[in-house]
Amino acid sequence: MSLSLNQWTTRRWSVAEAVDGCVRHGLPAIGLWREKVAEQGLAETAKLVRDAGLRVSSLCRGGFLTAGGLPGEEGRRAFAEALDDNRRAVDEAAELGAACLVMVVGGLPGVRPGEALPSGFSRDLAGARERVAEALSVLAPYAGERGVRLALEPLHPVYCPDRAVLSTLGQALDLSLPYPEEQVGVVVDTFHVWWDPRLFDDIARAGRRIASYQVCDYLHPLPEDVLLGRGMMGDGVIDFAPITRAVLAAGYDGDVEVEIFNADVWAADPDEVVATMRRRYTEVVLAEG
Amino acid sequence: MSLSLNQWTTRRWSVAEAVDGCVRHGLPAIGLWREKVAEQGLAETAKLVRDAGLRVSSLCRGGFLTAGGLPGEEGRRAFAEALDDNRRAVDEAAELGAACLVMVVGGLPGVRPGEALPSGFSRDLAGARERVAEALSVLAPYAGERGVRLALEPLHPVYCPDRAVLSTLGQALDLSLPYPEEQVGVVVDTFHVWWDPRLFDDIARAGRRIASYQVCDYLHPLPEDVLLGRGMMGDGVIDFAPITRAVLAAGYDGDVEVEIFNADVWAADPDEVVATMRRRYTEVVLAEG
Repeated sequence: MSLSLNQWTTRRWSVAEAVDGCVRHGLPAIGLWREKVAEQGLAETAKLVRDAGLRVSSLCRGGFLTAGGLPGEEGRRAFAEALDDNRRAVDEAAELGAACLVMVVGGLPGVRPGEALPSGFSRDLAGARERVAEALSVLAPYAGERGVRLALEPLHPVYCPDRAVLSTLGQALDLSLPYPEEQVGVVVDTFHVWWDPRLFDDIARAGRRIASYQVCDYLHPLPEDVLLGRGMMGDGVIDFAPITRAVLAAGYDGDVEVEIFNADVWAADPDEVVATMRRRYTEVVLAEG
Repeated sequence: MSLSLNQWTTRRWSVAEAVDGCVRHGLPAIGLWREKVAEQGLAETAKLVRDAGLRVSSLCRGGFLTAGGLPGEEGRRAFAEALDDNRRAVDEAAELGAACLVMVVGGLPGVRPGEALPSGFSRDLAGARERVAEALSVLAPYAGERGVRLALEPLHPVYCPDRAVLSTLGQALDLSLPYPEEQVGVVVDTFHVWWDPRLFDDIARAGRRIASYQVCDYLHPLPEDVLLGRGMMGDGVIDFAPITRAVLAAGYDGDVEVEIFNADVWAADPDEVVATMRRRYTEVVLAEG
């Protein structure tokens, strides 16, 4: 496994700066975000990473497929728009040669990420999960035809209301099974799954379905904005080494992305962040138990 | 099923006031807390509930069994102290005739509820879970001899670092299976389990192992102190009716406790809280799908 910089970790950097940072720090891969790619330009981003000799370990992110659970015309329109946006994301991943397109599937219909509950949202969690499966039946073949692998990301249950009704690795894996493994895989992100009593069984069961291994720590207590509770490896509660060993034993041979959402990390000098990340990767993520 | 007031919902009330409140509002049962019982006196509490004709639907709480995961003498002493305290809790539950003793098993060894990570805490989650199983092998027979049922409560994964390494109903159920169902059961608390993709399968699997059904809503966004993210039924994201039907279908015929940790609820007039709780119970918890 090799280390990859998910560019949200050095959020202040543009794509060009992040590509340069990877080269200067000797990292062979980068995880890109669609917003940043759009700012840099898709074709230019593709050229930048190609010229730098970097792998694109993932493109973040597709998903937000559950608004179709709203009633009537509003639901139908939201579902169609989400599918269109995801097809564009697949096209971008294809052009970038990304190893996978990370899918954050969305929360309860009508609930927007990080915002208070609006009137008219839906509490139908089972229905929202069915919408995700339905969308996947459209998007998986589309991705397959373009050589793109969708990577279903289970998010920590604290994000179930507003970001992802996929809450466990086992659930994501079950959703992926109807499709060829090169079309639909799963993400193992330590922050989201460290607590799961079935984690090690489900990592083994996932095997080559693991499309991405992302690492960052789980801070405690969480900050007021729970989205920013992700910390540098070693700063939180996660015992990384057993998870890393399990992911390796399952047959994963892709890159290891460090993706940190954290106000202090974002405020720091990105070069220092990358240097710390490299050191902690060796000391903490790869540590012998 | 009948409605029960978990007395932490009306936290300002003493045991005597809460018993009186249940009688005035026509509730047939109460969930007691050890701290409140100690303030009132154990024998006096037993007499108060008996004279009022109330059932004690639960005693909260035993648990916090994981500190034994700390190394050396400190760990051994912490484990012995936890066992002693839990034996006392069993004795109290027996004297009160409580339907069960709710067990919140504790978080990572050395991490104290609601506090920042201390130096020297343990990241060994698997080991902490083994300590819980080990403690149960001592406490279950002790409880069984006294006619007390331990009720293992899975807590939302957001509480895994500091309050409970039991994170899913399935995990709690698996831990209970070595013991007779009258010795060890499980708690279904909507706040903690609503997101779980295996919830309905595990409720059915639990069957008569369900020792307590607790309801309150899951607020979104959570407040800064995530402990206080529990809301009055209808104020959050949970679709209660399918869960209630599943718990009934599993064979549960005990009381339904409303247990709310919420700064606004605690600041309100307890009589109004109980009135609202009764109304929402009918409108939301028992609602036809």
